[in-house]
Amino acid sequence: MLAVADDLHIMNPLVAEAVKARDPEPLKKIAIRCQDAGVVAMDINLGPLGKNGEEIITFAIETVQMHFSGRLMLDSLQPEVLAAGIRVCKTPPIINGFSLEEARLSTILPLAAAHDSEIVGFLVDEKGTIPVQVEERLTVASRLVAKAKDAGVSAEKVIIDPVLVPLSWQNGTEYNRELLRTIQILDQLFEKPVRTMAGLSNLTSGSPGCFVRERVESAFIFMLAAAKLDYILMNTSRRSNLNALCLSQLLLGNKVFTWQEVADNVK
Amino acid sequence: MLAVADDLHIMNPLVAEAVKARDPEPLKKIAIRCQDAGVVAMDINLGPLGKNGEEIITFAIETVQMHFSGRLMLDSLQPEVLAAGIRVCKTPPIINGFSLEEARLSTILPLAAAHDSEIVGFLVDEKGTIPVQVEERLTVASRLVAKAKDAGVSAEKVIIDPVLVPLSWQNGTEYNRELLRTIQILDQLFEKPVRTMAGLSNLTSGSPGCFVRERVESAFIFMLAAAKLDYILMNTSRRSNLNALCLSQLLLGNKVFTWQEVADNVK
Repeated sequence: MLAVADDLHIMNPLVAEAVKARDPEPLKKIAIRCQDAGVVAMDINLGPLGKNGEEIITFAIETVQMHFSGRLMLDSLQPEVLAAGIRVCKTPPIINGFSLEEARLSTILPLAAAHDSEIVGFLVDEKGTIPVQVEERLTVASRLVAKAKDAGVSAEKVIIDPVLVPLSWQNGTEYNRELLRTIQILDQLFEKPVRTMAGLSNLTSGSPGCFVRERVESAFIFMLAAAKLDYILMNTSRRSNLNALCLSQLLLGNKVFTWQEVADNVK
Repeated sequence: MLAVADDLHIMNPLVAEAVKARDPEPLKKIAIRCQDAGVVAMDINLGPLGKNGEEIITFAIETVQMHFSGRLMLDSLQPEVLAAGIRVCKTPPIINGFSLEEARLSTILPLAAAHDSEIVGFLVDEKGTIPVQVEERLTVASRLVAKAKDAGVSAEKVIIDPVLVPLSWQNGTEYNRELLRTIQILDQLFEKPVRTMAGLSNLTSGSPGCFVRERVESAFIFMLAAAKLDYILMNTSRRSNLNALCLSQLLLGNKVFTWQEVADNVK
């Protein structure tokens, strides 16, 4: 399991301020921290952008890629913003993302085909609903991959995101159990295994404090690693998240395990 | 996932001393702690016992069941010791356990049939080898259940233990990955789902210190819970283990999730 940072998000007041003022410094700091943390990609989510959207995404990407050498993931519902972002990326970005909802199918998915991009596919149906049960989730996954193929995007380019919901939802634990099960078996559904991603930050929305949130996020990192998730989208400014990911990699990875390495890395 | 305590083990010097002196006090203390911790069963492992074996197991069980109301799991390779233990248990114990090894098939498994007991089946082949790959593990599981049926023990009475090996084994992480995968899919192998158990303490043998061991054991508790393990056999005197189990139950259990309950229980 590899980390994708969701740190560059418009909900972060520092990011919002920097974007408004076109001040590169806060974005530079985040990019350098992500580079140092060894994340494979950075998600860039600037929320809905007005008439300067194309200029703003260009500013953000040009700033970030001066200091971060990994992949970029462009997170937007606005096709013109995504198109502007794709044009300015030095290495091909990942588009985040589409679902079975008509607007996304007709405007976001064609961009992936046109630019031969990888794209995240959310397990969300036509009506915008996240299915609960594994069977429905697998049906949506099949249909997502079929829609992608129809649009000219091969299955290998699709990264399935089964959508972690807030724990505080009424049947949040049932969603969790079914989500883990979905990730565990999704690689048997297609001829070639598809990759998977899950966004961790949504899970703990409404949590009453930092310590509790850290414990719950760490626990889920271990659970998702055990389910063989490929990419975890998370707040990488939280040291506890990076520690849990590192420990998962030491316990389940391909390297020879040594206790010394655990002692050196686990704080 | 529910806890089985492995605290009453002859490798614990307090237990060894108490058994030697027939001193009930240390065993009573362990039993009371397990009762308070809410574990569903206590594993009793007194190692190889000499000519007083039947008397010693009787002493231990009679002491424990005065203070612990859950199930007992009798962990021995000596059929006469197990038989004496079964006779003195107030509620039917679980026998721990058999494998495809001839000695265990011919002496331990028949006890389960004779006493209509539940029994743990280790995923260990005829030669005493723990298979690495999922496919071989599932083959051994099928053969274990078939052997049990032949001996008059139905599949519902068998609890499969895929055997966690020390992380320090040369390909320890590969064993771990395949073990988790085995637990994830084992319930699809049989007509009715079989239950599963894993022993955590073996995993961290050789660890360089208490803090590192606690972190690794907690991580594995989350991973095993995500794989839908039924019973985790572990050291329940470690508060971190009970905390991780409790958090797993809050995140994946059937109760409605509340942040308050996490805040109250996670230390």
